[in-house]
Amino acid sequence: MEGFDLDPRLAGDTLAVTRLESGLLRLMDDARWPWLILVPAVPGAAELHDLTPAMARLVHEETDRIGAALKRATGCTKINTGALGNVVRQLHIHIIARFEGDPNWPGPVWGFGERQAWRPGQAHELIRRVMSEMERLQAEAAQQAMRSM
Amino acid sequence: MEGFDLDPRLAGDTLAVTRLESGLLRLMDDARWPWLILVPAVPGAAELHDLTPAMARLVHEETDRIGAALKRATGCTKINTGALGNVVRQLHIHIIARFEGDPNWPGPVWGFGERQAWRPGQAHELIRRVMSEMERLQAEAAQQAMRSM
Repeated sequence: MEGFDLDPRLAGDTLAVTRLESGLLRLMDDARWPWLILVPAVPGAAELHDLTPAMARLVHEETDRIGAALKRATGCTKINTGALGNVVRQLHIHIIARFEGDPNWPGPVWGFGERQAWRPGQAHELIRRVMSEMERLQAEAAQQAMRSM
Repeated sequence: MEGFDLDPRLAGDTLAVTRLESGLLRLMDDARWPWLILVPAVPGAAELHDLTPAMARLVHEETDRIGAALKRATGCTKINTGALGNVVRQLHIHIIARFEGDPNWPGPVWGFGERQAWRPGQAHELIRRVMSEMERLQAEAAQQAMRSM
């Protein structure tokens, strides 16, 4: 991650989850929705289409795996995925678990109301469940890749 | 595209652009923003992580190429990409050209105000420019793939 620094605004709005192959996984510090953010560790990247083909593939694979894990971990109705960057230009991808009747459903989460910080125990429990599903999905993907060799 | 039918609400809100390898490219019939929608031709798909790895890769590659083409064609400040599906569950990916000061900038476009239909000539001119950039990008990608063989 040489030359890569997490944008201070992203750092301030989120909690650390883990480091993935493509970059940093963070949890938005907003208890209204289970909301993860993947920040590819590519200095200066702002648009998905600016990534090299190999990095883009990795970012998309990890984004989709986070979405699958978040859906399994939360039992949500729908995953919302988005790369906007109108405010913070550093490339980051939102992966959000949405439930019917959640705040602003079925509208988007961005720009809606005020952030409500997680209680630490609840954030840790969510992170634990998501990471456990991520490991399971990674193992399943590895097995499928082996079988198709 | 056997067994695949475009959701009637998506069909009603958009104009046909072209058929890509992964599915249908449509233009949101809303002149407030240049706003494309890719609908992967996968019957029953709702989440990106439900796609097969090969189809997911194709959808992401084409999404990123549409984003690059839309940025070149419009000279926009930022591309916004999103897969929400809270209202229309059929998997579809939004690719939107955003400009500082455009309606609801820097907030999201979804759910904001009322749709304003394109004047036909303007929609066709936008589509023509985007498709021309798509062809250029596809040729560049093919050349790069040749060089890296």
